[in-house]
Amino acid sequence: MSIVKELAAKAKVASRELALLTAKDKNQALLSVADMILANTTEIIKSNEIDLKNGADSGLSPALLDRLALNKDRIMDMVEGVKQVTELEDPVGEVIASWDRPNGLIINKVRVPMGVVGMVYEARPNVTVDTCALCLKAGSAVVLRGSSSALNSNRALVKAIKKGLENSTIPVNAVQFIDTGDRDAVEEMLRLNGLLDLVIPRGGANLIRTVVQKATVPVIETGVGNCHVYIDKDADPAMAGEIIINAKCQRYGVCNAAETLLVHQELAASWLPEAIRELQARGVEIRGCSQTLSLVPDIAPANEEDWSTEFLAPILSVKIVDNTHAAISHIQTYGSGHSESIVTANDAVAEEFLKNIDAAAVYHNASTRFTDGFQYGFGAEIGISTQKLHARGPMGLVELTSYKYVVRGSGQTRS
Amino acid sequence: MSIVKELAAKAKVASRELALLTAKDKNQALLSVADMILANTTEIIKSNEIDLKNGADSGLSPALLDRLALNKDRIMDMVEGVKQVTELEDPVGEVIASWDRPNGLIINKVRVPMGVVGMVYEARPNVTVDTCALCLKAGSAVVLRGSSSALNSNRALVKAIKKGLENSTIPVNAVQFIDTGDRDAVEEMLRLNGLLDLVIPRGGANLIRTVVQKATVPVIETGVGNCHVYIDKDADPAMAGEIIINAKCQRYGVCNAAETLLVHQELAASWLPEAIRELQARGVEIRGCSQTLSLVPDIAPANEEDWSTEFLAPILSVKIVDNTHAAISHIQTYGSGHSESIVTANDAVAEEFLKNIDAAAVYHNASTRFTDGFQYGFGAEIGISTQKLHARGPMGLVELTSYKYVVRGSGQTRS
Repeated sequence: MSIVKELAAKAKVASRELALLTAKDKNQALLSVADMILANTTEIIKSNEIDLKNGADSGLSPALLDRLALNKDRIMDMVEGVKQVTELEDPVGEVIASWDRPNGLIINKVRVPMGVVGMVYEARPNVTVDTCALCLKAGSAVVLRGSSSALNSNRALVKAIKKGLENSTIPVNAVQFIDTGDRDAVEEMLRLNGLLDLVIPRGGANLIRTVVQKATVPVIETGVGNCHVYIDKDADPAMAGEIIINAKCQRYGVCNAAETLLVHQELAASWLPEAIRELQARGVEIRGCSQTLSLVPDIAPANEEDWSTEFLAPILSVKIVDNTHAAISHIQTYGSGHSESIVTANDAVAEEFLKNIDAAAVYHNASTRFTDGFQYGFGAEIGISTQKLHARGPMGLVELTSYKYVVRGSGQTRS
Repeated sequence: MSIVKELAAKAKVASRELALLTAKDKNQALLSVADMILANTTEIIKSNEIDLKNGADSGLSPALLDRLALNKDRIMDMVEGVKQVTELEDPVGEVIASWDRPNGLIINKVRVPMGVVGMVYEARPNVTVDTCALCLKAGSAVVLRGSSSALNSNRALVKAIKKGLENSTIPVNAVQFIDTGDRDAVEEMLRLNGLLDLVIPRGGANLIRTVVQKATVPVIETGVGNCHVYIDKDADPAMAGEIIINAKCQRYGVCNAAETLLVHQELAASWLPEAIRELQARGVEIRGCSQTLSLVPDIAPANEEDWSTEFLAPILSVKIVDNTHAAISHIQTYGSGHSESIVTANDAVAEEFLKNIDAAAVYHNASTRFTDGFQYGFGAEIGISTQKLHARGPMGLVELTSYKYVVRGSGQTRS
């Protein structure tokens, strides 16, 4: 048996024990994990320094080095994050539905853990800790595959997590870490049907594409967001300005940031030039359609590729549309099914937009930036699904579970 | 654009219109479909005769030819099936959950259609009609790929279905049929990410394996069932006999039939020889463990492969186990996560079994044969999922849907 398969098999065995634990057991284990991460702060930071040095030597960008960097504060944040997960309700064991059949069978649909969750992720080492906390609380074992650039940091974090589990009822084998930069290891992991119940990729578009292309185990596709804000002719101009500035500028490198602004032609002349000036004042590069260029000549023209690009940067494409129908049609053509917003005072127009747009989250008079497990009140987030199977949008603990039918009878047979 | 991609793109466009239709619209369309199938009975039977002749010429087994055969009664059954789907509640539009956030955002989690569902299936032409009825009622377009052995039958059925849609508000393009036996067409279909939201394979283990291995679009794995019945020492002997006979013999070729009988050692001597005689009297071949052989010498020994085989035939492997723990452990090792049953008068033992066994359906004192959408009261079934992502066990209309978050605000931005 290969090393990867062996790790997954251990996780599978551990998952059976873990599935039966109470919320109290799991919370105690997570508090012990939090303590051990804190107690090993110095070692974790030392390991992180190796990754930072390697990263700098191999030319990682300052932005990526910042994402990779750990310090006392960031480790305290991780520890707090784990503690917060202990305060969330345990979804396992919930009776989702219950009914009797005419033949006397009593059917209960009961929430159960997913089993073994694989996580393939990039750069940020806090994903290691978040994933463990959420999966373990949801009763699932986890097989982690972080990026090679964070190998030493992740190794130190997993060591601390496992130490924490030693003082708990959660089997230490419930957390498995693929301790190699070898790419074959990921490919093998993605094909462990029967051992892994689910793989979630977290990272850039390339990572997600690779996982979707290579995996034979079930996948939840996350993250890629080509999000739009549509300003209708009946929009409140001030509100429209605040929403697009927030959706574009509050953070650039996130999946729920806006990448394209659509504006109704009747509002364009009065509203758009000022809005563009405000965006430019915040350092945003504007790429406009021909109508936009005729209103604001000093900007770059948008090409076909711009409409389908998730910039993840201070760049915004802008298009003037004839009407709401044209806005919907543009989003249907170019959107990635993540988050889409309309700004309008006209409720009927808003409802048309909300109904016609097929995305994980659709907004009326609010920023796309709200698509987030914490903002939705889930208390946690393992990722944002952009597929329709199983879960859509922000995924919390419940989205990490499955269910089974428990059927009680008195000797029933089928005729 | 290839033909397959073109079909799927048409289905995608149609799915947007279909997603907005009311239950009344969709029911009217399905009734029109039912009428057209009935009106075209003669043509459908003629086309089926071509498939039957081709099948006989190419050496299809009598059992497969029977599955393939259509006659007036079978077509009436299909028509009745479509009418029954019109009586089922429309799951689309249901507000699954609704809550406010402290910032005033109102979040609604709303049930929406899956979008475009691909179905890859074998032999039985009724799957063509069932799938269309269920997918359309659940608001999704469908791309069908039947087996080449049923090509003419399916072609005639799809023609009638499309004629029915012509007299309705459902776009005719909502049903697409891959009208070729070409294997490349399936492989291409399985990789149409962005056009297909889900693929469901229905057929034998090989078909399902191929779809799971080749697909990059999300899949729901269905069907393979290596199901067990465990007779505990505290089982009522008569009930135990009735349940294993029903689970094994009521139908052989189905995924929820029992393939292995596990018997507690303390009950084995008094109960097992008689049970085996009764099974043998029904034509069942018994393959026993060494302990079973010492009780009933005139049977074949079971080998390692038998424990993991879904016979789909009048064959049953039998194993005597030391206790419930050993029974659970055997099922964990060899089970396929479909349906597992315990027979016992001891409720504590039953609960241990129900809790520890990780399968789509677990039974206490009932036959495994009940794992079925109709038996569960869903009024329909598109397949039985053996994976944990999205849906588990029998899938009806609800399991063919997704959801989206509809968020209404008054200018909220994220700080």
